Amino acid sequence: MNSSTDFSDLSHLVLPRSIALVGASERAQSVGGNTLENLVTHSSFRGRLHLVNPVRPEINGRACVRTISDIREDLDLALVAVKADHVLPVLQQCADQRVKFAMVLTSGFGEVGEEGRRAEARMLEIARSSGMRIYGPNCPGLNNINARLGMTFSPAYRFDQKPGPIGLATQGGGMGRTVIQAMARGIGTGLWFSGGNEVDLEVSDFIHYMATADDIKVIVTTLEGVRNGPRFLAACQHAARHGKPVVAMKIGKSDYGVKAAQSHTAAISGSAEVNSAVFRELGVIEVDEVGELIDTAALLARGQPTGKEKVAVFCYSGGTAALAADKVGTAGLTLAEFEETTLATLRTQLPDYAAISNPVDTTAVVLTNAEIGYASLKAVVDDAQVGAVIYPIPFDYGEVTTTAAESAARVQRETDKPIVMVWMSDKLGQGYPTLVDNGMVPARSVAGAVDAVRRYVEYGAWKARRDAGWIPQALSGPAAAGGDDARGLPDVAGPVREHEAKAVLRTWGVPVPQSRFAASADDAARAFAEISAPAVAMKIVSPTITHKSDVGGVRLGIDSADAARRAHTEMLAAVRAAAPGHVLDGVLVEQMSTGPFVEVVVGVHRDPAFGHVCTVGLGGIAIELFKDVSRRLLPLDRRRAREMLEETRCMRLLAGFRGRPAMDVDALVDALVAVSDMVMRSPRIEEVEINPMAVMPQGRGVMALDAVLNISPKT
Amino acid sequence: MNSSTDFSDLSHLVLPRSIALVGASERAQSVGGNTLENLVTHSSFRGRLHLVNPVRPEINGRACVRTISDIREDLDLALVAVKADHVLPVLQQCADQRVKFAMVLTSGFGEVGEEGRRAEARMLEIARSSGMRIYGPNCPGLNNINARLGMTFSPAYRFDQKPGPIGLATQGGGMGRTVIQAMARGIGTGLWFSGGNEVDLEVSDFIHYMATADDIKVIVTTLEGVRNGPRFLAACQHAARHGKPVVAMKIGKSDYGVKAAQSHTAAISGSAEVNSAVFRELGVIEVDEVGELIDTAALLARGQPTGKEKVAVFCYSGGTAALAADKVGTAGLTLAEFEETTLATLRTQLPDYAAISNPVDTTAVVLTNAEIGYASLKAVVDDAQVGAVIYPIPFDYGEVTTTAAESAARVQRETDKPIVMVWMSDKLGQGYPTLVDNGMVPARSVAGAVDAVRRYVEYGAWKARRDAGWIPQALSGPAAAGGDDARGLPDVAGPVREHEAKAVLRTWGVPVPQSRFAASADDAARAFAEISAPAVAMKIVSPTITHKSDVGGVRLGIDSADAARRAHTEMLAAVRAAAPGHVLDGVLVEQMSTGPFVEVVVGVHRDPAFGHVCTVGLGGIAIELFKDVSRRLLPLDRRRAREMLEETRCMRLLAGFRGRPAMDVDALVDALVAVSDMVMRSPRIEEVEINPMAVMPQGRGVMALDAVLNISPKT
Repeated sequence: MNSSTDFSDLSHLVLPRSIALVGASERAQSVGGNTLENLVTHSSFRGRLHLVNPVRPEINGRACVRTISDIREDLDLALVAVKADHVLPVLQQCADQRVKFAMVLTSGFGEVGEEGRRAEARMLEIARSSGMRIYGPNCPGLNNINARLGMTFSPAYRFDQKPGPIGLATQGGGMGRTVIQAMARGIGTGLWFSGGNEVDLEVSDFIHYMATADDIKVIVTTLEGVRNGPRFLAACQHAARHGKPVVAMKIGKSDYGVKAAQSHTAAISGSAEVNSAVFRELGVIEVDEVGELIDTAALLARGQPTGKEKVAVFCYSGGTAALAADKVGTAGLTLAEFEETTLATLRTQLPDYAAISNPVDTTAVVLTNAEIGYASLKAVVDDAQVGAVIYPIPFDYGEVTTTAAESAARVQRETDKPIVMVWMSDKLGQGYPTLVDNGMVPARSVAGAVDAVRRYVEYGAWKARRDAGWIPQALSGPAAAGGDDARGLPDVAGPVREHEAKAVLRTWGVPVPQSRFAASADDAARAFAEISAPAVAMKIVSPTITHKSDVGGVRLGIDSADAARRAHTEMLAAVRAAAPGHVLDGVLVEQMSTGPFVEVVVGVHRDPAFGHVCTVGLGGIAIELFKDVSRRLLPLDRRRAREMLEETRCMRLLAGFRGRPAMDVDALVDALVAVSDMVMRSPRIEEVEINPMAVMPQGRGVMALDAVLNISPKT
Repeated sequence: MNSSTDFSDLSHLVLPRSIALVGASERAQSVGGNTLENLVTHSSFRGRLHLVNPVRPEINGRACVRTISDIREDLDLALVAVKADHVLPVLQQCADQRVKFAMVLTSGFGEVGEEGRRAEARMLEIARSSGMRIYGPNCPGLNNINARLGMTFSPAYRFDQKPGPIGLATQGGGMGRTVIQAMARGIGTGLWFSGGNEVDLEVSDFIHYMATADDIKVIVTTLEGVRNGPRFLAACQHAARHGKPVVAMKIGKSDYGVKAAQSHTAAISGSAEVNSAVFRELGVIEVDEVGELIDTAALLARGQPTGKEKVAVFCYSGGTAALAADKVGTAGLTLAEFEETTLATLRTQLPDYAAISNPVDTTAVVLTNAEIGYASLKAVVDDAQVGAVIYPIPFDYGEVTTTAAESAARVQRETDKPIVMVWMSDKLGQGYPTLVDNGMVPARSVAGAVDAVRRYVEYGAWKARRDAGWIPQALSGPAAAGGDDARGLPDVAGPVREHEAKAVLRTWGVPVPQSRFAASADDAARAFAEISAPAVAMKIVSPTITHKSDVGGVRLGIDSADAARRAHTEMLAAVRAAAPGHVLDGVLVEQMSTGPFVEVVVGVHRDPAFGHVCTVGLGGIAIELFKDVSRRLLPLDRRRAREMLEETRCMRLLAGFRGRPAMDVDALVDALVAVSDMVMRSPRIEEVEINPMAVMPQGRGVMALDAVLNISPKT
């Protein structure tokens, strides 16, 4: 795994000028034999191909050399198809020969056990020390279908060769083939990286390459885990800068999935929620299924959304039109209101009993009259309010369905707006290939089509926000530990005591209650006098007692100096009785917040894949019950902080829900930015959790009522 | 619409002994012509067929009579295919002839406007006065495919004839045809009712019939609206009693869908949430898409779930296996833990690098070795822990995929446990028809397969709960207004005042705060003395002021008789100043609840389709933010009430969340049953809302702190 965010140019991996096939074979079912046949018979490779075989002088009439060292030219790519125990020496020879890329097709490494993992570590050493990049091992290879070049042993390569604008990067091979075979629905995948165990080159490298590949319009990936968060971030941001959408399916929403994915690829999985939050922020379009991946990618290959698209539903079955409208509504999309000219055309073209407002129910007339089908759909698609059309075909009626499909294809040829067809039936009559051959990539279900349109529109909205500067161009995470400005941070590692945590927060500008540490009862009385509040809370301070209230270690609403003095004595006695043997440093006397407030939680934790992530949402006990939170990578600025809040339902409470006072959202935003600054400048911070953060009415600020702070040792 | 819950026997509609086709025609594209051809050429009808045409003595060599009155025998069915303006006289003639059923294929009625709706009202009168039942109008007819009898003008009928165990009832025709065409995936729909405008017979009648039809195993319906809730309830409960699952897709989850469905069929829609709650309770399996409808119905046609099924995932692609396991987890299903004998078999059969624990990743070995494919899948399916297997096929590799499909089909023939195949690829090679021909009805996506299994298992669990007496055999709703026992209910209609509402609740045993009405300041002082509580709340009583606190009409925490006296005087003065001209009856003095409690909402409202529905959940302002509620039809008993609570997240609060005290759930259950009894015996109640209902710690009961009660006029 490469820990830097530098990326090599992969042009000569994707389209090498010279290839050596090490382990070339004439046995049809072998890795070397299949790869040879794919390269020679089923590819249009114009570079130089060298075969390496230690014992055979020629294979199928092509000369072989004994080892790669016998090749007297600079090699772009070595395809390694030798037995597992020969792979390391071959790689070393490749490195010695200054081969640029080595692709190890052979299996039997990390996926089978400890010995294999040691061999992989050795591969990585070879790559690092030589500069040669390694692809694989345990991978089916690389399909450059746009160049008709199959650097793969897969016997399916020869059958699945539809060039196209989709670029695919997978870890495992299985679902990549599912995506490739969407060619049967009319969408071509021009390039497929499948990096197997990803010992060196990984999905992020492939995304980075495709970001500037001219033949690729949409990048698609299936992930079992993100091995290296910063590199993934960098690759996706590179794609975004070059206007290439990235559509991703990540396994690991449930514990079963996390476990199965880890045992399959040994990739690290952060939490699914963090993953989704990061994807949203990067503009990576997350999908849950291979079918959704295909529908969404195919739609993005057809047009560039603005995010403002309103939808029209066009159908010849009233019930199906209602279903599609229903799904448009549940997806949060907007049905366009047609302009008067559109309605006039539809009124003229369609029978009286048709529904001409959106959703349009044309009735069966469009099945028998192609001109009406054309003219009415054309009117809808040309309506200035309409940004995309969903056109479900509920059943196959043979020829008449073909008529409808042909009209739709004719309209599509005359417009840039996508007409998203849905072929709902399991019967695939002639209308189906009509849509496929016209590149309309029919979805399989109404929900699938609507979800694809939703993601298309959302991606457009993300792009618009990004172009308007709402999304940072680079999310870099906290500074390296060397350059920190860890103001106020204790030297010791581990969880720090509450009052120390609050002291750190105060240093960084996060409001905390006034407080005094009271070692004695007299200190407590003095503390009350110094804190200008009608009442104080008192909490024992102990490095070892975690649940203070369970042992009588918390008192609220102390409203006089005498009461504070008494409470100090009583609390120490009570806690000593209830929790004998614990260290008791004293009591913290703390200003109590009075008046109405909303409790929110503000936290930062370190995700294993992506680094520090901020969480904000409804606090108190509600956080576990309702999980009403929003997440962002650091750093936050005021705009991003406010946007986070607006994604939560608790924002409605903060804004003044049902006649309640509006709360001080500005102060909460300030506090979020302060916490972000604190962590960015103090990378030793592993975790901060302020719960509750009291948000008071407008103008009265916020206050961190409780705080947990966890720091790692100084390095 | 029939308002009773009686159902006619439809046997002679579904399989008539004699049919008259009124409007028989020889024109190929006409309704009468197509229907005639379907009946004569594409059906195996063994009864007597009479053609009625006023001008032609014969059609295609078959004699015609001029009018239906010329037929001298008892007719089971008249198929009416005449022009719209002739339909009413024809129906009257049919009724006069004592025809049992009339099916009106003709369009141009309710769907085109007011005149059409008047004609439909007249049809219903004819039906009511004669006893003849009417099917339609504006419908494609009835397909009895199991009897090869097409009482339909649809030109598709002749092509879509696969007998099978699915029975289908739709309103519109479009998506019904989608279901029928699932025959291409290997599942037959033996009977399809499509009742169009449903002037008399409706979906509920068809469900009721299919509940006892021997040839139907699973009932499927697509609904744009439930016209008559009680009849739908009765039909579904009839199906449940006869062990027939009902799978339903109802349009109307979003406002767009509600509007589109209403304009399409003019059916009434209650709220989607109520609808889903009713479905859950009836054991009706709700789906969101036609594809889900087919996957679920096909699975239920293959086996009877117990609700305890654990799932195995079997796949030859590791990534796909991980995806399937992930979906199993997010669906809330359980992966089986294999027994040792299963693991031993898999260890023997599969290569070292295969994953033999669940999910099973066989690796590609099963593609080339049919015996290994058979033996390993057989071991999994025979494991006693496994109730269903999900087997995704991610891609089509031609012959080798066929090998895998054949092994799966072979195992399926030897077990009753369902093996749910998923054909993920758009390429449909020979493996696909292998699965189809073996009746394995491959799903289209992993998520689709997993959702079908989830619904299958949930249905089994529902059946088990029903068999254990957890589900009432009959949900009948409140008594007719005539027989009420409306204890405590005021005579006047409309919203009643808070203290009156509380008085009614108290009558029915729902605890409310002690309170006294205080006309004068002295009354208020006396009231304080009489209420044995440390503090009281005081609220003005006015029939016209709704937002009492906005005008100074609420005071809390009054803790002495003197304070109560003063508050009375001050409040009246304040309210008179702030809201001049309003009637002020006096002040309500009410016990305040002290100590910790959880606020819940308890409500009953009348759904337009299903009648009185109870809602319970987290109360206060949270209800609108989080909608954490559960719903049930009345009546409730203690068990149902507790079950409702257990469906809410707020039950975790009530049970004592994170060290908080456990609350008095028993008392809340009592209160729910009391509210249910109250509404059941007082059907004039339109709406009750207790929000908040304070639930105190165990043993300390509940208290209705605020209550709204809305009643309809006495009849």
